[in-house]
Amino acid sequence: MTLEPRLAAELAAIVGPSNVLLDETDLLAYGYDGTWYDSRPLCVVLPADTAQVSAIHRFATRERLALTPRAMGSGLSGGAVPLCGSIVLNIMRLGAILEIDEVNSVAVVQPGVITGDLQRAVEARGLFYPPDPSSLRQSAIGGNVAENAGGARCLKYGVTADYVMALEVVLPAGEIVRTGGKTVKNVTGYDLRALFTGAEGTLGTITEVTLRLLPLPKFAKTATAAFAQIEDAARAVIAILGAGIVPTSIELMDRLTMECVEENHPTGLPLDSDALLLFAVDGNYESIVDDELARVADIARTCGAHDIRVARDAAESARLWEARRAVSPALARKRPNKLGEDIAVPRSELVAMVRAVREIAARHGLLIPIFGHAGDGNLHPNILCDRRDPEEIARVRVAAREIFEAAIALGGTLSGEHGIGVLKKQFMELDLGADALALMRRIKHAVDPLGIMNPGKVFPDPGGIDAFDLPVGTR
Amino acid sequence: MTLEPRLAAELAAIVGPSNVLLDETDLLAYGYDGTWYDSRPLCVVLPADTAQVSAIHRFATRERLALTPRAMGSGLSGGAVPLCGSIVLNIMRLGAILEIDEVNSVAVVQPGVITGDLQRAVEARGLFYPPDPSSLRQSAIGGNVAENAGGARCLKYGVTADYVMALEVVLPAGEIVRTGGKTVKNVTGYDLRALFTGAEGTLGTITEVTLRLLPLPKFAKTATAAFAQIEDAARAVIAILGAGIVPTSIELMDRLTMECVEENHPTGLPLDSDALLLFAVDGNYESIVDDELARVADIARTCGAHDIRVARDAAESARLWEARRAVSPALARKRPNKLGEDIAVPRSELVAMVRAVREIAARHGLLIPIFGHAGDGNLHPNILCDRRDPEEIARVRVAAREIFEAAIALGGTLSGEHGIGVLKKQFMELDLGADALALMRRIKHAVDPLGIMNPGKVFPDPGGIDAFDLPVGTR
Repeated sequence: MTLEPRLAAELAAIVGPSNVLLDETDLLAYGYDGTWYDSRPLCVVLPADTAQVSAIHRFATRERLALTPRAMGSGLSGGAVPLCGSIVLNIMRLGAILEIDEVNSVAVVQPGVITGDLQRAVEARGLFYPPDPSSLRQSAIGGNVAENAGGARCLKYGVTADYVMALEVVLPAGEIVRTGGKTVKNVTGYDLRALFTGAEGTLGTITEVTLRLLPLPKFAKTATAAFAQIEDAARAVIAILGAGIVPTSIELMDRLTMECVEENHPTGLPLDSDALLLFAVDGNYESIVDDELARVADIARTCGAHDIRVARDAAESARLWEARRAVSPALARKRPNKLGEDIAVPRSELVAMVRAVREIAARHGLLIPIFGHAGDGNLHPNILCDRRDPEEIARVRVAAREIFEAAIALGGTLSGEHGIGVLKKQFMELDLGADALALMRRIKHAVDPLGIMNPGKVFPDPGGIDAFDLPVGTR
Repeated sequence: MTLEPRLAAELAAIVGPSNVLLDETDLLAYGYDGTWYDSRPLCVVLPADTAQVSAIHRFATRERLALTPRAMGSGLSGGAVPLCGSIVLNIMRLGAILEIDEVNSVAVVQPGVITGDLQRAVEARGLFYPPDPSSLRQSAIGGNVAENAGGARCLKYGVTADYVMALEVVLPAGEIVRTGGKTVKNVTGYDLRALFTGAEGTLGTITEVTLRLLPLPKFAKTATAAFAQIEDAARAVIAILGAGIVPTSIELMDRLTMECVEENHPTGLPLDSDALLLFAVDGNYESIVDDELARVADIARTCGAHDIRVARDAAESARLWEARRAVSPALARKRPNKLGEDIAVPRSELVAMVRAVREIAARHGLLIPIFGHAGDGNLHPNILCDRRDPEEIARVRVAAREIFEAAIALGGTLSGEHGIGVLKKQFMELDLGADALALMRRIKHAVDPLGIMNPGKVFPDPGGIDAFDLPVGTR
């Protein structure tokens, strides 16, 4: 399938000839994301502003062509992979920080802004953007405000949707809609901000985001606790939160995860332990931060931690977080491929979930390192494998399904941060039930009656869970 | 319009004969809410559980009868007034606290729970339910989890929607849908929780709510600052928040508000001042709470506060908040009627908004006391009047419109907490624009194609702003 020359010319008239990509190498480059799915797009367009996005939507509507909004392509569920011969609508040229409004504590950004750049810019003004940037993927699959993985501060500061105050969205047929504003409170009409923030590009293209900021805490400190049993680490999480302490984050790495990190990037992780918890605490009073960290350490010790380290300074703290950030690249090197999950369970079920994953790994003879945001109950079991081995991939498929089923059976959900995309769509009815899913389909149809926005995502294909088809693509 | 006996019998078979109210006095009693609107319902039904709510929905769907979910009827925008001959679906019998789960820090409640009862129950376990209860009205117009006014802790702890983790909702045709769960993070599919939380009963009836709780802060303290000019009070709000201090709340009362309170309930408010700010600060370390309150007082003084009082103990603190809670009843006594607004503006526009309201009041010769959640930019200008005076009501209508227009012109919105209901529906396009409103209509139609859920609310009637018809009803 190739784009007719007259249509290519029309797109070139909208965005300029150099911003319509049709070369086979470009189509290959824009066909994938952070998963192993890929699919060749019809073409790639790079609009410069909202008006151009709107014009592309009107064009696609008239021609009945599909659009897949995309930014850096770092998504982990296949959400930005252009299925059904989609046009890739790359929003990276909408990359400006439009305003940092210190009086109202908000930043107005275009969706192509790199999260790290935003964080540096607001921190220079004594503010900070709290959500775990990796959870931002949802805020704009047309936007890598949405697609940069990073820290994990949700436990104390909440999730992305809490920080989205306003959006500018281009609806499927090209209408430009603004919803919300710089007011802290707003209950006027239906909550379109939350709807579009979580829609993975299936309802429109986000072209501007107004984000709430908080005063930057003056002090942030880090500690680690190593456990002989991962179950004890999970119990420590519950005990710490139960004591009324709310750290910025509590991150978990199991032994297999630590081994992968140390193989690639030795930082002295305690490989003699079954699991490591990494704690961050922040606040405006150093004595309080120290006190909270000491209480965290005490509780961890009571729960069986045998090795507790408190970072003495910012450099040591940075080194500990470096190990955490090294996890994903390290896992990618252990075996040729990895299938990363993103299940979330109530924290009361952390022990049961960790046990379930280990049992599934053992039964199928697979390596499944476990890490994630333990304080949030949000775990990332990664199934390591080799896609070229059909027998192994058959086991991976079964194991992935069993992990989803276990999370849902424990009152959890398919995705805490990464979204549904392609990877989890066949499990939607299992998680949500038939009636809730049918309602979402009716909303999708009401907003996008032609079905042109990011087709093949979020909603299951007919065929049930057995249609769960991992190895799309040919790379 | 009366309910046919065979239909009444059918409802009686669902909920029991004593839970179908048809007497004229009952119909009168259930025809109004906290506004001065009223409208006689077709009948009132009081289901006992979700299954009965679902059966009522199926009945209403088959008979094409409208349903208006309602709890205590304390709403301030007419949202629970049964228009179009609606059946009032009173959910007060769904009044149980089903579970307080300390490990996961959540409460599972039915929508008829009284917010104060919930707060006492969770505080007894060392937890607390943070949102300003008055903003909860949105969470279930089928529920007075939603309809009790109270404190104002949004500034530090965010808005209601942030605390709704899961809902059970009966869709218009009777399907029972559960969305969300006890997981802190959940990005599986479209955000139906936020959609239904803000829908004012127009998309379905909420039958169960899972709420996030936080550890109860150990210390809470209060201070007041009196200003000779309300503009200085507004500037103090900006200066305090700009200094990186986030109080639990910053409440504002202007002189007229204080006069009304003192006339009814003398507590020694500084009537020689133009405005009073009431600050609450909380936390787990008393020295920090004291320090933050001292910094708040210093900044207020710098901004021109001439009388600063720090409550010495809990009793004095309680007395200060009592004055704040006395506002609404006091205004109700000053003149026969009041029209309460709920505009929210970016806090940078607080000064401009306060000036605009005063200018409008002076120009129309109306008493419009101003109070509200200044830290959130959420103000409640109340237009005091006498409904029996058509000339005065004509001025009230113009003034109300001008207040809405001023808020929107300043980047604000119609409603920060109370919702749209009947009172603000004609202004929806002014606030949201035609395309966003059209999108909301498409969503409404997708979820409720027969239009049976809470008709006449949220969406404007044809005729534009001139159809803004305040004095509905005959009481």
